[in-house]
Amino acid sequence: ENHEPNNNLGNALDAQGALQGALATVGCPAILKTEELGYDGKGQAPLDNDAPETLDAAWSALANAPAVLEQRIAFEREISVVVARDMNGHSRAFVPVDNTHVGGILDVTLAPAALPLVLSREAERIAVTVADALEHVGVLCVELFVSPDGPLLLNEIAPRVHNSGHWTIEACETSQFTQHIRAVCGLPLGSSERRTNAAMKNLIGVEAAAWTEILQDPRAHLHLYGKSQARPGRKMGHITWLYGLD
Amino acid sequence: ENHEPNNNLGNALDAQGALQGALATVGCPAILKTEELGYDGKGQAPLDNDAPETLDAAWSALANAPAVLEQRIAFEREISVVVARDMNGHSRAFVPVDNTHVGGILDVTLAPAALPLVLSREAERIAVTVADALEHVGVLCVELFVSPDGPLLLNEIAPRVHNSGHWTIEACETSQFTQHIRAVCGLPLGSSERRTNAAMKNLIGVEAAAWTEILQDPRAHLHLYGKSQARPGRKMGHITWLYGLD
Repeated sequence: ENHEPNNNLGNALDAQGALQGALATVGCPAILKTEELGYDGKGQAPLDNDAPETLDAAWSALANAPAVLEQRIAFEREISVVVARDMNGHSRAFVPVDNTHVGGILDVTLAPAALPLVLSREAERIAVTVADALEHVGVLCVELFVSPDGPLLLNEIAPRVHNSGHWTIEACETSQFTQHIRAVCGLPLGSSERRTNAAMKNLIGVEAAAWTEILQDPRAHLHLYGKSQARPGRKMGHITWLYGLD
Repeated sequence: ENHEPNNNLGNALDAQGALQGALATVGCPAILKTEELGYDGKGQAPLDNDAPETLDAAWSALANAPAVLEQRIAFEREISVVVARDMNGHSRAFVPVDNTHVGGILDVTLAPAALPLVLSREAERIAVTVADALEHVGVLCVELFVSPDGPLLLNEIAPRVHNSGHWTIEACETSQFTQHIRAVCGLPLGSSERRTNAAMKNLIGVEAAAWTEILQDPRAHLHLYGKSQARPGRKMGHITWLYGLD
């Protein structure tokens, strides 16, 4: 058990009493996240003030699971960089992409992200730095916040192929999946070069039922995952549209 | 039974006696092909002269199956055009490709074919004309001979996705397989645009055993078909290399 906040961004909390102290350090607004198994907004509780009932509600929402408290950042938008790193430490980053979420779930990814070149390069540099620091082998995704006037802020790391990299299947010389397999098999990575601009949209729950209509667009490439039940919030598939290069 | 040659290129032969007459019309050299189930050089017998023992040998080689006699053409090389045609009669041709064969089996396809633009367009026009004339729905491949000084000559038609179109999986906006499914499902065709130049090599028989070595090339995209036995002449898989645009 760790009752002391370690820093002002991530604090391991495994008892209810620690939350008050962590919140004093991190400040409001904050977000409480379970240490494990959180994704797509699951395992998260927002904290907009430090009233006792707010703390109780947040803690209860996570069923008292061990959690991390993070400062909530004012950000303009989220971008991500998928990077592959091979056994020899060589990395190949895909171009940064813009991500928009609906209800905590990735909805649309636009490739490339609308970024000044200097920020785009910085984002790729951060992704490679993270992959190197972790001595990662395989594909890794780094999610970053773009602030109106501040630096890029690292949000999350996903040490695997990532939803925001699905567009690479059709649009890049080597997809994130092929890069991952090449990396873990000890093979040299392929080129991550983008052949065409692309937009990817997740098909969440009943959205997937519209697939026949979606395919009326000749630019639409459909992927259905074969899940039998279209439960709300469930990722049933995705579409990638190809737009050519500028 | 048809003992009379119908024209000087294709003559249905279903009795040994007709071969002599057909050969007189078609001329030497010629090639005898079974009417059905011929592919990869199977079901073919060359005729370099009209000696009785040559005729007997050719006929026996095909086990006396009903056959077609064709003139053998002096050609520089073979190209092919894969074209998709949808239910509304709209066609989308992929760029013509150069094919080289080893032992009657396609070995390497180069995309695009090294052709003057006027011949490239003419090849695509022929492919679309054939698809229209057959009222074909789906993908169709037209193989053409390029003569040193003559016109393009139609060799064979394959009313399906074709080995010489496998490069489209990685190199084109829409692959031949996706185009075929779009066509037969009544969907509009995607773009057949080539994103990058490519070379495809079939892995015949034991060639497939070298796949780990093949993948040392970062440009190599490997497809293994999961066939258990690597019999001589059997297509076990293929590799596509991507080269970028000129």
